[in-house]
Amino acid sequence: MIHNMAKEQGITVKKENDMAEWYSQVCLKAELADYGTVKGTMIIRPNGYSLWQGIQDYFNKNIIQKTNTANAYFPLFIPESFFKKEASHAKGFTPEVAWIDKSVSGEGERLAIRPTSETIMYDSYSKWIRSYKDLPLKINQWCNVVRWETKATKLFLRSREFLWQEGHCVYETKRECEKDTIMYIELYEKLCKDLLAIPVLTGKKTDSEKFAGAETTYTIEAFMPDGKGLQCGTSHILSQGFAKAFGISFIGKDEKKYLPWQNSWGLSTRLIGALVMTHSDDKGLVLPPEIAEHKVVIIPIIKEESKNKILNKCEEIKKGLKSLNPIFDNREEYTPGFKYNEWELKGIPIRLEIGPKDLDKKQVVLVRRDNGKKIEIKMTNLKKSIESELKDMQKELYFKADKFLKNSIVKADNLPDLQKAIKNKKIALSPFCGNEKCEDELKSKAEGASTRCIPFNSKISKDSKCVICKNEAEFEVYIARSY
Amino acid sequence: MIHNMAKEQGITVKKENDMAEWYSQVCLKAELADYGTVKGTMIIRPNGYSLWQGIQDYFNKNIIQKTNTANAYFPLFIPESFFKKEASHAKGFTPEVAWIDKSVSGEGERLAIRPTSETIMYDSYSKWIRSYKDLPLKINQWCNVVRWETKATKLFLRSREFLWQEGHCVYETKRECEKDTIMYIELYEKLCKDLLAIPVLTGKKTDSEKFAGAETTYTIEAFMPDGKGLQCGTSHILSQGFAKAFGISFIGKDEKKYLPWQNSWGLSTRLIGALVMTHSDDKGLVLPPEIAEHKVVIIPIIKEESKNKILNKCEEIKKGLKSLNPIFDNREEYTPGFKYNEWELKGIPIRLEIGPKDLDKKQVVLVRRDNGKKIEIKMTNLKKSIESELKDMQKELYFKADKFLKNSIVKADNLPDLQKAIKNKKIALSPFCGNEKCEDELKSKAEGASTRCIPFNSKISKDSKCVICKNEAEFEVYIARSY
Repeated sequence: MIHNMAKEQGITVKKENDMAEWYSQVCLKAELADYGTVKGTMIIRPNGYSLWQGIQDYFNKNIIQKTNTANAYFPLFIPESFFKKEASHAKGFTPEVAWIDKSVSGEGERLAIRPTSETIMYDSYSKWIRSYKDLPLKINQWCNVVRWETKATKLFLRSREFLWQEGHCVYETKRECEKDTIMYIELYEKLCKDLLAIPVLTGKKTDSEKFAGAETTYTIEAFMPDGKGLQCGTSHILSQGFAKAFGISFIGKDEKKYLPWQNSWGLSTRLIGALVMTHSDDKGLVLPPEIAEHKVVIIPIIKEESKNKILNKCEEIKKGLKSLNPIFDNREEYTPGFKYNEWELKGIPIRLEIGPKDLDKKQVVLVRRDNGKKIEIKMTNLKKSIESELKDMQKELYFKADKFLKNSIVKADNLPDLQKAIKNKKIALSPFCGNEKCEDELKSKAEGASTRCIPFNSKISKDSKCVICKNEAEFEVYIARSY
Repeated sequence: MIHNMAKEQGITVKKENDMAEWYSQVCLKAELADYGTVKGTMIIRPNGYSLWQGIQDYFNKNIIQKTNTANAYFPLFIPESFFKKEASHAKGFTPEVAWIDKSVSGEGERLAIRPTSETIMYDSYSKWIRSYKDLPLKINQWCNVVRWETKATKLFLRSREFLWQEGHCVYETKRECEKDTIMYIELYEKLCKDLLAIPVLTGKKTDSEKFAGAETTYTIEAFMPDGKGLQCGTSHILSQGFAKAFGISFIGKDEKKYLPWQNSWGLSTRLIGALVMTHSDDKGLVLPPEIAEHKVVIIPIIKEESKNKILNKCEEIKKGLKSLNPIFDNREEYTPGFKYNEWELKGIPIRLEIGPKDLDKKQVVLVRRDNGKKIEIKMTNLKKSIESELKDMQKELYFKADKFLKNSIVKADNLPDLQKAIKNKKIALSPFCGNEKCEDELKSKAEGASTRCIPFNSKISKDSKCVICKNEAEFEVYIARSY
């Protein structure tokens, strides 16, 4: 039975042998997601959506509320003329926009389905903002966005529709704007660490990799076990370009008219992809306890003679662990072994096994999902022991991923070293000139690798030369292949 | 200053004189919503969105979790062929569907933007459901839907895009399905009462007013002060029609193949419209405390000589009331009177005023938003007194609305009485035969009024005659004009 289950329902490839196939099996078999019938779309199933809700809850509590930002909702449809108002923004998004059929809508202008909401939001901002008293204006929205991708769908990582949050703020001064833009990216970094146990590299994008319409883009970049970077969130200093294009202005304390400063910042369901790839293993999903909806599963080992005693004890334990939202798997049609495999596949952090012997010894057997550690713990000490294991698990998952990230960074001052690093699935840290030509050359010479970000406290010696063109380097930059 | 404010920012018409204009002024000036630039769209501003979040939080906690339903997310795009699979469903939605431009998407079939998700969800259900062990399957999604309305936009009540939740469950037996469908409508009724202080009439729709594709539709109907009904939520027994159309089946315990039973149920941002119309007044928004994000606003009355003392006391009070999420309005550029008007307009349930005299007397002045009651309360007793006023306010708002609803119901056994009731902006309770022809005749003879719902425990004497055709009546039904 157990082995049948493993064959039919378990993961059939090893993570290190074929990560792409392993990843899609974990997403499908842990029931996080499924492919939609319409090409390029995906369904977020309850197990996956609970991770998104966990991210939303953390975000609303620790980012929205604490930074005095407010949630709102703007329309899905954007008039074509709005796109054209900010030239570099329009250029960046035009190829992937999906439009509403005019013969149906029957009205003047073409309508786009939002790929991002700068334009539609700033149109309203221009009506709402009058005076310095209206600033800062800090609004976020949770919504779906559509980008008509032509590449193959990858669950959570690339689909034609995805869910995200997008924050859009307006400030009186450049300084406030810049300060907040960095604050938001640092809050993203903290979310990844504290909630998802994902370490990231935080820094600035090069000019070629910036958001369409931004003056500066900050990013958090995670690094996946197959040697590819994954952009997990960005914040953009938009400066005054959109304010000019959309006619946003305010009357200052001195009664003169000014242009405000703006930023935008977003993260998406893509984070769930990073979460799955970072921690999971050949048995299936591994979830850091903080993001796991159910932190514990209770599995009775039933012998006919002590059945009721065991089931009653399990119910009692379930009640005592209420704050950990435990699952009590009392299904009679499955063996304990089958259940172990199923809940391992689905990533429940801690399993409790309770059989007749445990009952006699007033103990339960606790098994950790991440490292398989199996310990006997006394009933009297149950909740404390579990909480302590959960805390350790959260820390250890982060520590392990962070060690992997740090061990993956390789200094590369010349092209052969850079090529070697990329070939070995590492992140190169290289001096770089920042020219677009060198960005292009980089991609062709190093297996499609690209610049990921310029670290915040990057120091570079005066005689450093660009790893590509050998002219003077402007900064150090992380380089890796990416999703 | 106060009067200027009232003129420019306050509500300029009386609720009883022009409810339509009053309503849109309250929505706009309390900054709940704004009109979008694209015809038929609306923007939910932070003050409005916080009400929707309040509904979502209540709903996830008291309905989703307690009924073992799970949240998920399905694609925005639905292939045209899906619509055609269930004939009556297709017929009901076709005229309002917005389509994606084929020249952009460039692919085979036309794609609709979801007006509701039965078809796209049940396509997946047919792949996921294999055995009785997979049932019941109970999934809900929070999302945006699009219905290409041609009538004029009314904020929250009618727009081309709106937000809602839609629950979609599958059951082994007809009995479970029917039981749950009634349970969900009763949970909606409870949400309206406990959270929004809105009383509703709960019952069954007549055949003409059913959801397209449903065997039975249950509804909660609120009654607005202008004499119109407002449908606030529905649950539908879909029976086995969709299961047949989408090939959903399961293997039972006896190893035979069966068709399952289905329901769906939804409520939307329209509820916010009902909330505004039910409780608000000529000064602006009135919010039942349970749904108010900020339950209290603290306004200092500043004299230069005691300024710091007052401000410090206010800060202290703010800290003590943290669980009520108070606003401390310490803006120096506005007078207290201006602030009173602003927060009354925005519906904060309780205002605290603190001046030098109050400081001396160790008291604050508490003013209730709903009835203007003004009382002095001792600092030592502050939180308790506020909580007790909030509780009373919640109860009294419900009680007042319920009295209005009950007083609006008029028995009408013949057409003249029915016409008189509708003319007087009442709800008629009339015997009815249920024929479509009589539904049509009703509309033309009674100022467009329609059947709202058949009460659950409707008893009807054997010799009752239909209020329209005078043939035998099948049931009693509430009749009113509606939004």
